[in-house]
Amino acid sequence: MNLYEISRYLKDNDNYDILTHAYPDGDTLGSSFALCLALQQLGKNARVITTNIPSKFLYLLNGVKQQIFNTENIISTDVAADSLLGSNMSKYIGKVDICIDHHSTNTLNAKYKFVDKYAAATCEIIYKLLLRMNIKITENIANCLYTGISTDTGCFRFTNTTADTMRVAASLMDLGCNTEYINKVMFETKSKEKIELERAVYDTMDYCADGKCAIIYTTLEMLKKLDIGDDEMEGLASIPRQIEGVLIGITMREKEGSFFKISVRTNGNINASDFCSRFGGGGHPAAAGCNIEGDLKTVKQKLIKAAEEIL
Amino acid sequence: MNLYEISRYLKDNDNYDILTHAYPDGDTLGSSFALCLALQQLGKNARVITTNIPSKFLYLLNGVKQQIFNTENIISTDVAADSLLGSNMSKYIGKVDICIDHHSTNTLNAKYKFVDKYAAATCEIIYKLLLRMNIKITENIANCLYTGISTDTGCFRFTNTTADTMRVAASLMDLGCNTEYINKVMFETKSKEKIELERAVYDTMDYCADGKCAIIYTTLEMLKKLDIGDDEMEGLASIPRQIEGVLIGITMREKEGSFFKISVRTNGNINASDFCSRFGGGGHPAAAGCNIEGDLKTVKQKLIKAAEEIL
Repeated sequence: MNLYEISRYLKDNDNYDILTHAYPDGDTLGSSFALCLALQQLGKNARVITTNIPSKFLYLLNGVKQQIFNTENIISTDVAADSLLGSNMSKYIGKVDICIDHHSTNTLNAKYKFVDKYAAATCEIIYKLLLRMNIKITENIANCLYTGISTDTGCFRFTNTTADTMRVAASLMDLGCNTEYINKVMFETKSKEKIELERAVYDTMDYCADGKCAIIYTTLEMLKKLDIGDDEMEGLASIPRQIEGVLIGITMREKEGSFFKISVRTNGNINASDFCSRFGGGGHPAAAGCNIEGDLKTVKQKLIKAAEEIL
Repeated sequence: MNLYEISRYLKDNDNYDILTHAYPDGDTLGSSFALCLALQQLGKNARVITTNIPSKFLYLLNGVKQQIFNTENIISTDVAADSLLGSNMSKYIGKVDICIDHHSTNTLNAKYKFVDKYAAATCEIIYKLLLRMNIKITENIANCLYTGISTDTGCFRFTNTTADTMRVAASLMDLGCNTEYINKVMFETKSKEKIELERAVYDTMDYCADGKCAIIYTTLEMLKKLDIGDDEMEGLASIPRQIEGVLIGITMREKEGSFFKISVRTNGNINASDFCSRFGGGGHPAAAGCNIEGDLKTVKQKLIKAAEEIL
């Protein structure tokens, strides 16, 4: 289905459940609530089905009407695979009518699909869809779309950002989206717990291979002492790679069951996926992961050995 | 002078010295080198006069020809006051022909001036000037302009970013600027020394006024131990304000002469300039500074007292 056909479908039908992926982020929530607001603007019934919205995203619900209706159509946004719907939404598996996404690896089962891997965020696709549907992009809709685009691009910093991404953001700013508030909440705010975690993690920083590899770690004991949840761990993996001269940045996170979850980020032409495949993992050329069993010392030693062999 | 008149002037004259401000940043360097490349493209003689270019900015010199000539015209970019030319360039004071800037507070003495306080960066103005001059925006020029715009907006995160800023950036991306390299170097790279400094500064983090005020500090001893220069201090002041719930974020930096240089950043409607005026300083509503004499304990106690009175 192309965007024109999706636009037609949405206008011709009614009573929409719109699905996000589990552990929802700014893009899946922004896409779903923008689409919900648009459908309600057309006089349709629509609701977003999601789980545990982090409180910083609650402004995305502004202007959304609570409607009671029997589901007739199911749309998913930013959901790359059936499994990513999570256990709460597993009853929707195989029943999605339209899947809208930007992940090139999308394998979700759906009657119709629109996947644009060149879009920096699914919200970029939704923006174009809403224009085609002749929706008035209100401030609330603009806030939803800007949230998805800015969070999926690290505020226009990541390599997925295109000239088109910048132009969509410019239009949303013209339409009155509150970039000041959104940028502040998304990119300029850290919880006290996160600061404490960063402090603790900085203390674990270690270098090997003449400073070309940097390693940090968290242990279950550290997290317990700091009383920190898994949602604060976001972004930690980018710390070691940021350091000047570092080609391999490794983050080790101890998990229940005496193993470590390893995130590897690389610079230059070092392949992170190759690195992780040594330990049965994989991923992308610059970002990959694996799990390694053992205690801190043993696992770290294995990683250092692998890094020194590669570098 | 409007941009049309500046364009005429630049085409009608020759032999340009282009001045940056002292301790040059991405915007003043990007503006100056972009203008230099443009003038050389027109067959003019031009050179950039600056001091100590940080090595991460050296790519801005790509394509710039070294030319020997007698100065006839002097242009300044992004220089808000005569004093900001620094001691090296003080001989130019009072001799500037055209001053191009975006600081609303501009007081530089110049024959002609163009100051647009709505431009997020001086590079945004230079982009519009070059279009008016019919300059072909090469990859090198685009890299210069993108560098100034992205660094002065914190990569499109700060409140000075407008829809226009985004559109200029989009055009520069169309013209082939290397955002991947520039964003990586400017926003994703920290020196090992900077990491060590952050680690040390995190250890000084203290809260008062029920967590609504956060204070960090550096001492001369810390800097000596870490062997860290002043250029690594950039960005420290934004750390305490980032913390959730903090309305006043204070950074204390011990200086030679037994005093502390204080940076205050505020959230909400707390006025940083009012805060600093208690100590003979001043600044903007959300970012201000002052100097306070005394040892660490005394100065910190004074700041805590002031914060608790205000909050």
